[in-house]
Amino acid sequence: MIRINENYNKLQSSYLFSEIAKRVSTFQEANPDKALIRLGIGDVTHALPPACIDALHNAVDEMAADATFRGYGPEQGYPFLRTAIAEYDFKKNGIKIDSDEIFVSDGSKCDTGNFQELLAGDISVAVPDPVYPVYVDTNVMAGRTGANHHGRYEGLVYLPSTAENGFVPDVPAEPVDLIYLCFPNNPTGATATRDQLKEWVDYAHKNKALILFDAAYEAFITDKTLPRSIYEIDGAREVAVEFRSFSKTAGFTGTRCAFTVVPHECRAFDANGGQQLLHPLWNRRHTTKFNGVSYPVQCAAAAVYTPAGREQVNALVSGYLDNARIINESIRAQGYETAGGVNSPYVWIKTGTDSWEFFDRLLNAAGVVVTPGSGFGACGQGYIRISAFNSAENVKTAMERIKTALQ
Amino acid sequence: MIRINENYNKLQSSYLFSEIAKRVSTFQEANPDKALIRLGIGDVTHALPPACIDALHNAVDEMAADATFRGYGPEQGYPFLRTAIAEYDFKKNGIKIDSDEIFVSDGSKCDTGNFQELLAGDISVAVPDPVYPVYVDTNVMAGRTGANHHGRYEGLVYLPSTAENGFVPDVPAEPVDLIYLCFPNNPTGATATRDQLKEWVDYAHKNKALILFDAAYEAFITDKTLPRSIYEIDGAREVAVEFRSFSKTAGFTGTRCAFTVVPHECRAFDANGGQQLLHPLWNRRHTTKFNGVSYPVQCAAAAVYTPAGREQVNALVSGYLDNARIINESIRAQGYETAGGVNSPYVWIKTGTDSWEFFDRLLNAAGVVVTPGSGFGACGQGYIRISAFNSAENVKTAMERIKTALQ
Repeated sequence: MIRINENYNKLQSSYLFSEIAKRVSTFQEANPDKALIRLGIGDVTHALPPACIDALHNAVDEMAADATFRGYGPEQGYPFLRTAIAEYDFKKNGIKIDSDEIFVSDGSKCDTGNFQELLAGDISVAVPDPVYPVYVDTNVMAGRTGANHHGRYEGLVYLPSTAENGFVPDVPAEPVDLIYLCFPNNPTGATATRDQLKEWVDYAHKNKALILFDAAYEAFITDKTLPRSIYEIDGAREVAVEFRSFSKTAGFTGTRCAFTVVPHECRAFDANGGQQLLHPLWNRRHTTKFNGVSYPVQCAAAAVYTPAGREQVNALVSGYLDNARIINESIRAQGYETAGGVNSPYVWIKTGTDSWEFFDRLLNAAGVVVTPGSGFGACGQGYIRISAFNSAENVKTAMERIKTALQ
Repeated sequence: MIRINENYNKLQSSYLFSEIAKRVSTFQEANPDKALIRLGIGDVTHALPPACIDALHNAVDEMAADATFRGYGPEQGYPFLRTAIAEYDFKKNGIKIDSDEIFVSDGSKCDTGNFQELLAGDISVAVPDPVYPVYVDTNVMAGRTGANHHGRYEGLVYLPSTAENGFVPDVPAEPVDLIYLCFPNNPTGATATRDQLKEWVDYAHKNKALILFDAAYEAFITDKTLPRSIYEIDGAREVAVEFRSFSKTAGFTGTRCAFTVVPHECRAFDANGGQQLLHPLWNRRHTTKFNGVSYPVQCAAAAVYTPAGREQVNALVSGYLDNARIINESIRAQGYETAGGVNSPYVWIKTGTDSWEFFDRLLNAAGVVVTPGSGFGACGQGYIRISAFNSAENVKTAMERIKTALQ
């Protein structure tokens, strides 16, 4: 008899975005003339950079002739892209990462979801709270948790990110084996300092733990004193895997390209305590269960590193950062405490009320869609997230409407 | 202490294509002037159809302007593509498949590799021999096998595909829970009749089993009496998941688009024997661990179903089928027994010697690269696979060279 993986039955229904959609749709039916401004889901809104568009067209032309057509490429990504990533994202910043430590993929969601497959089923797992749900759900599917009680799974270690710790979780008192970190953070927008990351790297060495470091929003860091990569921290190569994406940097949410960095020294252990390197394991998984990113898309990603591409991407990111600043200043001017909004496209706002109540207030009184913080975990209760991914004009209009609504 | 999934240590090194590459490279160093013809790896060689090229350029132009830019799409694929697939691949052939039973993905390799995640860790699994290695390796990674002895994993049920059964495995005497089938077959090129598939569907009902049906090569079936989909068989909707791809049909091996069909009725069971539908489970996995296929690529895939696209794809497939016929006739004319070569892009040739010995003979004497059958499993020993994916000219030259070499 074919039996299911019953861990799937432990999963909570993905309530957050469907509930938002339901409330938005109810509002729109009742107010058909009201133009909504969506600052909820973290999706980019600006066109791809022209350098990427040119690279896509050129690559499509290559696919149009037998002589230049590309079939299967290397699953790990074409050398032209892996080399550009290593060079511009790491070596030029003084970080030692080789091109063969870069695994190109179709998304950080997939990579952060899949990486746990390399690890034993009974390791202990720590996630931030609030949290990007993929970290949790993929571990539930893999059987590393018990049942869910009041929004928390038995067996997971939740790392509170609160106003008290500046939304950067403290290292836990107990030893955990696998730790998910994300900076700049989704959803809080918080960034971690070098000293804070150093504490985590030291913790991982001391406890023989592994850090999965989600740096999907690193491009938004403009403060030179803040680390953009965990590999800026001594000792990180042994204990950390880093995930990066072109989604938010270059507007690739619908184009699909990302990459994972697995340094050659990065290690886990077998049951006897023998060291096992993760690079060959991830390489094996990547080549067995993945078949490479679309060739034109890889060409577009490589164009991000050309002089024109870098300039265009910087302009895109700057625009979104301007939005974040405007949101942050506008909300703070109304007396609310916020996190993020600087070095991050997200502003995390303490509402003083239930998250959904505040969500409804902004929807109904301002026609602005945000994301209730409680959807990201217990510590998100009493917060909302506002995303800077929209046009400057829409953001300004939204802030005026919110100002009026909150007065 | 962070521990690895030790099942990875059971995996055999992926010897086949690396060993081929090594022998080819040695040959080329010794014979720098000899132009090799590659009929080994099953990768297409012709350009994308013009309809797909046009669709790609148009979609790229949409991505170039804020007003038409596309960010995150539905993880399951855009409705325009799912609807076209359901309509042209199924409904027009009298097969009831709804568009929401179609899950668009970036490759059948990923889908056939990932689907087992929905299933319990201790089910019994049957794979054909010879076999596409992904079916085996992903189950090894998931811990459903013991160690490997002489090329076979403990705990897997191997279904011999031999000259005696026309390379269509018989249903096993014992009950198994999960069965991988692939028709037209990779590597043997064999096709299954309706009656043969009916036996498997009946077996799955009787034994409460699930069939994962890999139909990546269905476009090569021209014989109207042969089923192109397992859903042509009564009762298959409850017991079978089908995998299809644009890779070999429309030359998408480097462009990346495929889809999986999970009918609403398709079921597995929980430990208590209660029925559990697979559609919501796959939907949950797909939306949690995947973020949709690149928008321009989905537009290109949809173009396959336009009148121009269908005509161009038929021409592509016909060209490769002509190659297969030429290979098959040429090899048979030299007294060798073959399978495939009709309704399939692969020709499976009984060598009368060790597979690698024959591989070396063709490489050294004819400068033609093929694939040793033993690389696909014990039952592939004594066979080689020749792929029709090349230009007509190269195939004809290769056949002349092989004819001379074998005389």
